[in-house]
Amino acid sequence: MPVTTLKMGLIGAGRIGCLHAQHLTSRVPHAELLMVADTFEEAARECAERYDIPSAVQDYRHILEHPEIEAVAICSSTDSHARIIEEAAKAGKHIFCEKPISLDLASIDRALDAVQRAGVQLQIGFNRRFDANYARVRRAVAEGEIGKPCMLHIVSRDPEPPPMAYIKRSGGLFLDMTIHDFDMARFLIGSDVEEIFVQAGVLNSPEIGDAGDVDSAVITLQFENGTIGTISNSRQAAYGYDQRVELLGSAGAIATDNNYANTAVISDRHSIHRELPLYFFLERYSESFVSEMTAFVQAVLQNRPVPVNGEDGRFPVVMALAAKKSLMERRPVRLSEILVQE
Amino acid sequence: MPVTTLKMGLIGAGRIGCLHAQHLTSRVPHAELLMVADTFEEAARECAERYDIPSAVQDYRHILEHPEIEAVAICSSTDSHARIIEEAAKAGKHIFCEKPISLDLASIDRALDAVQRAGVQLQIGFNRRFDANYARVRRAVAEGEIGKPCMLHIVSRDPEPPPMAYIKRSGGLFLDMTIHDFDMARFLIGSDVEEIFVQAGVLNSPEIGDAGDVDSAVITLQFENGTIGTISNSRQAAYGYDQRVELLGSAGAIATDNNYANTAVISDRHSIHRELPLYFFLERYSESFVSEMTAFVQAVLQNRPVPVNGEDGRFPVVMALAAKKSLMERRPVRLSEILVQE
Amino acid sequence: MPVTTLKMGLIGAGRIGCLHAQHLTSRVPHAELLMVADTFEEAARECAERYDIPSAVQDYRHILEHPEIEAVAICSSTDSHARIIEEAAKAGKHIFCEKPISLDLASIDRALDAVQRAGVQLQIGFNRRFDANYARVRRAVAEGEIGKPCMLHIVSRDPEPPPMAYIKRSGGLFLDMTIHDFDMARFLIGSDVEEIFVQAGVLNSPEIGDAGDVDSAVITLQFENGTIGTISNSRQAAYGYDQRVELLGSAGAIATDNNYANTAVISDRHSIHRELPLYFFLERYSESFVSEMTAFVQAVLQNRPVPVNGEDGRFPVVMALAAKKSLMERRPVRLSEILVQE
Amino acid sequence: MPVTTLKMGLIGAGRIGCLHAQHLTSRVPHAELLMVADTFEEAARECAERYDIPSAVQDYRHILEHPEIEAVAICSSTDSHARIIEEAAKAGKHIFCEKPISLDLASIDRALDAVQRAGVQLQIGFNRRFDANYARVRRAVAEGEIGKPCMLHIVSRDPEPPPMAYIKRSGGLFLDMTIHDFDMARFLIGSDVEEIFVQAGVLNSPEIGDAGDVDSAVITLQFENGTIGTISNSRQAAYGYDQRVELLGSAGAIATDNNYANTAVISDRHSIHRELPLYFFLERYSESFVSEMTAFVQAVLQNRPVPVNGEDGRFPVVMALAAKKSLMERRPVRLSEILVQE
Repeated sequence: MPVTTLKMGLIGAGRIGCLHAQHLTSRVPHAELLMVADTFEEAARECAERYDIPSAVQDYRHILEHPEIEAVAICSSTDSHARIIEEAAKAGKHIFCEKPISLDLASIDRALDAVQRAGVQLQIGFNRRFDANYARVRRAVAEGEIGKPCMLHIVSRDPEPPPMAYIKRSGGLFLDMTIHDFDMARFLIGSDVEEIFVQAGVLNSPEIGDAGDVDSAVITLQFENGTIGTISNSRQAAYGYDQRVELLGSAGAIATDNNYANTAVISDRHSIHRELPLYFFLERYSESFVSEMTAFVQAVLQNRPVPVNGEDGRFPVVMALAAKKSLMERRPVRLSEILVQE
Repeated sequence: MPVTTLKMGLIGAGRIGCLHAQHLTSRVPHAELLMVADTFEEAARECAERYDIPSAVQDYRHILEHPEIEAVAICSSTDSHARIIEEAAKAGKHIFCEKPISLDLASIDRALDAVQRAGVQLQIGFNRRFDANYARVRRAVAEGEIGKPCMLHIVSRDPEPPPMAYIKRSGGLFLDMTIHDFDMARFLIGSDVEEIFVQAGVLNSPEIGDAGDVDSAVITLQFENGTIGTISNSRQAAYGYDQRVELLGSAGAIATDNNYANTAVISDRHSIHRELPLYFFLERYSESFVSEMTAFVQAVLQNRPVPVNGEDGRFPVVMALAAKKSLMERRPVRLSEILVQE
Repeated sequence: MPVTTLKMGLIGAGRIGCLHAQHLTSRVPHAELLMVADTFEEAARECAERYDIPSAVQDYRHILEHPEIEAVAICSSTDSHARIIEEAAKAGKHIFCEKPISLDLASIDRALDAVQRAGVQLQIGFNRRFDANYARVRRAVAEGEIGKPCMLHIVSRDPEPPPMAYIKRSGGLFLDMTIHDFDMARFLIGSDVEEIFVQAGVLNSPEIGDAGDVDSAVITLQFENGTIGTISNSRQAAYGYDQRVELLGSAGAIATDNNYANTAVISDRHSIHRELPLYFFLERYSESFVSEMTAFVQAVLQNRPVPVNGEDGRFPVVMALAAKKSLMERRPVRLSEILVQE
Repeated sequence: MPVTTLKMGLIGAGRIGCLHAQHLTSRVPHAELLMVADTFEEAARECAERYDIPSAVQDYRHILEHPEIEAVAICSSTDSHARIIEEAAKAGKHIFCEKPISLDLASIDRALDAVQRAGVQLQIGFNRRFDANYARVRRAVAEGEIGKPCMLHIVSRDPEPPPMAYIKRSGGLFLDMTIHDFDMARFLIGSDVEEIFVQAGVLNSPEIGDAGDVDSAVITLQFENGTIGTISNSRQAAYGYDQRVELLGSAGAIATDNNYANTAVISDRHSIHRELPLYFFLERYSESFVSEMTAFVQAVLQNRPVPVNGEDGRFPVVMALAAKKSLMERRPVRLSEILVQE
């Protein structure tokens, strides 16, 4: 069987863009990266040199106009995602786009509309779905290993807060950090959320509070299928990146632990101890970035639906907006309140 | 140093009463059980015979009138607790009473008032405080090992629901089951709760729903000191009694696991597995029952404050009433709403 | 059913004797301790007072002559065990005796001969057989859960060496410490050992080497049924008492871990850690002491064979002598070489 | 800084050869694979096509004669290793060679001699040294984290025996399987072994016994620095590939566990369980193959000593021959007996 290759362009050569460049040029089968663009042209050139990409440009429109390029990976800043999706769709390119699509629903809806009209594929970069731990939990639910899902608990904590400059334009905890957990909740349970209640506070970083945001939150989720969920977020866990999930079903439970660089346990005069978990998302979820891109390339080449589509990119934003509203109004908020308001 | 002995009477010879009888006659130092009473006299006699207690009676007032008896353990049915506390206090006896004191606050307040006026000691049977796992967590908080407490998560699930007859007169999930977790939350954090929000449902046992109760609940707690807590309750965990706690602090976290009958792990062609946790509270918390009674006897003999006093018995009932209100009204409820209303 | 009580006498009121006194007077059902003897009479009196034993004497022969006493627990110094067993047997008393029976085989054989002629029961204090972890492993073997046993690994390490005075009269590492592991090996596999090879050294405590003993040893065991075993001993593990076993069978493996005072795990800036295992044998094996005595009392009262008999007390001594010979002669030694030589 | 690339040739396009081809063409920085050779030319061609290698040949001498190729990776059958090393050394190529160099010492010595005379680098494929778990143990020893090493226990078991055809020409358990553990023992302790004793048997696969080999063995090691070691080998562990190590030092211990595809633990009505460990060496040690080749390429490019040299390849063969002798003669064998005999 002759194997076709998917010719791609990369838009955005920052940290996550370069990671995808590395994967597309060495670890993702049947992908070929022809061009990389970055508004900061030097970044594009460095990325191209490092990963042997034939062409580096400043303006991403060169990629959209390139006749051989069939798909793009959008890794530019969040505020440009929706617009570039629209343009790429109009140019007939299949699209992989980092999360979130946008911080406001109107932009998202315009982008999804463009995608639908163009008949191209759009995959959103919720890479954690491809992580081995969460994929195992999803399989347990899908195959009924633990019966009907009843109570979900997601722990998601960062080792330290991002710089305040980042915090200020992040859209807040729910749109920036919890959004991954909102997607995870939907993915694991296979049902949508209908109501959200938030209990949150500024427990670690007063400067985050000064910026009008919270650094710690428990979000309670009521799913349509009856499952009750909680998400426990913190911007700062002293011991590092804490990414776990526990799910109680009617016939059993499944729980995942953090990942570690090695399994060594040391016993000395003082304690039985092991090293901290993998430091942050680049280390913890490294393989999932390869897997999501591999899945995207295969879906496009084989003309099958992508595993994380536009609607999957939109719903967590709705959840984040509901969470914000719950925090402001000190009451449970139904998702329909957000959906309707737009 | 001559050792004094605390002479005691036992009121109620049911399952938990007989457990205390066994401990008081063999494992609690400096205690002497002189008399046991049960409205079902045969039960009192069997208990007396089994544990070599000199006297068995039908009417607990014989105990209250016994001149040598200095303290009583009240293990009768919940609806009689408050009344017997009042009578025992008037009789000048120190009191150990099983939880809860009562399902309504007015009765509790009358009982606590009688205790205060009589100047006797009252200890409530929140035995889990004496469990080695929770005591270790409390120590970590008290000694600042994990910094300032930020986010508490209590998992508390039963292996199977009690009989429906029991459910119907139990006062509901919050007053019957969560009440232990409410006490645990206060104990671990060392701060009181000011607001409660409940997300609950009937996920396993429709007959519990028919009786007007829920079988699964997530209770969100806002503590006065800023800590945010969650309690995850279920009447039925397929794998058995699930009793764990996780606490994130500003300088670290502490988590406890379930207890097991042995540490053996079997690896075979199919999986790496171990047996289920200890079956239920009598197995899981067996040592804590000995410890709480030992602590009571020592406190009385040495004239020191008991470790779980009347107010500690009252507050969890207030929390349970707030939880009920939150469930009914679908909103967060401040504890002050309950305290004021009485 | 009327319950009979086994009236007993205790010979030796040292640490282990007092432990048995405590259990016999409070936690072992159907046992009654009438008298305690110790060559140091004050020790006997203190023990009697503490545990409410009616009579305390200096000469254990008062116990042997006591017409009501049916059974004795021998907890005197090792060098007196064999002689007192002989005398107790002649007096028609059933016997519980601490390990080892003796350090030389001739004395053991005389004692066992006396026991057999008298038709009394003799149980040896290999308490670890009654530990929940090892009992679980034994059950896995007995029920074929892991198939045919193939490779056994016993880890047995003390937190620190005993005083040198003790070391010098202990009979050496194999007769003093490994003897428990030799018994465990036979118990778990259900087959006798036919050959032993020792690799040992002085790795921690030069003064133990000066006394002609070793402080660390790996003992390789060839069982009659083909199983290959190893015992890893050390007089000093920095992290405390290390008592584990791993067994590979043809259909799987079973492994036990150490026991801990609680399950709490702390995560902080430096590591994920838990406290050290239970300190030493009194803490680690506390429940097994109660269980072995309960089993003895029941076996005698019900006229059933005791679970650890005289031959079970003799064989580990043979193994220890073979181990000594292997260490001296730097070669594998067959057990038959020891058995024949006597 | 201009980066040089190491131009390489691959000799042998079997399973392990193709694995190295994959890594050299995608994951090892600064390596360039110019040619692949295999006596079965079709295999070379398939490998070249799959991994985009410019040239595929039948005769490896084309590689040795290629003027641009500076280094070779030898992945041909074991019996050709020593000869090709000699030829490659004479051709002035740096050499990476799979283990073992040869099954007989004379051939090894000729090969090492050729390497030394040519002044080229030779790295042996003991990939496990690059595994994160073992590297962590080595670091603990090197940095004195657990004090002076005292007792080492290596568990190394395969999920199932190789085909009998393989067994028959493998050189036996010690030269085929234990050789990795012999290397690991030296690597971890940082000291050579001076005496070996073997206790072995045919416990699972009678046909292995019929072929004159054993399927299970415990090998006791006496290190020059006093450490005592044991290796527990089995050709068949029902639960899969079991690769662990435990090391007791004078100040503590370090232990590693197996690696798993995910961290999920399922609790159901029957047990608390997780899936089996990673299936076999390709899965378990996948990253270590990348790391060892990366280390080789860097060492050659930077003209630094390779991390696993010729002597590291020779010593484990000496240990295996001593183990064979111990098994035959039923006694501990000193390594000097083997070294001298050659």
